[in-house]
Amino acid sequence: MLYKVKVIVMPRKGILDPQGQAVARALYTMDYKGINSIRIGKHLEMEIEGENQQVVEETVKEMCEKLLANTVIEDYRFCIKEA
Amino acid sequence: MLYKVKVIVMPRKGILDPQGQAVARALYTMDYKGINSIRIGKHLEMEIEGENQQVVEETVKEMCEKLLANTVIEDYRFCIKEA
Repeated sequence: MLYKVKVIVMPRKGILDPQGQAVARALYTMDYKGINSIRIGKHLEMEIEGENQQVVEETVKEMCEKLLANTVIEDYRFCIKEA
Repeated sequence: MLYKVKVIVMPRKGILDPQGQAVARALYTMDYKGINSIRIGKHLEMEIEGENQQVVEETVKEMCEKLLANTVIEDYRFCIKEA
């Protein structure tokens, strides 16, 4: 079975997000004044072959822990659906 | 009114995604074999003050066109909800 997986990796709460700060500052200088906070992370879209949803879920979790997210400074979440 | 906005910026279909390719190759060498395609983009979460949802929608669209996405090679989509 083919599954579509979306993974979102974001900087943890309380951890500095320099990319977000840079964009916030840029927007401020471009006269967008009402912005309270910006945080920027990664959005991954992939297609995975797997036996069933549970197997894919475990695989994706493992991939996140090992490669996709740095869990010291980043949180991840994902959703899986059949393609 | 305060609004929570999520913006997703992804490389356009047909445009090379070197970051995605690198991750796909890394996962392959780590023995995750069932992965058909990966594309990697940005995920932005922000809080914006605005009069109403329509105003915020126009502001966010403008910000995407001007700064957040490079529309030559990237697509963007966003969703807005009241905080």
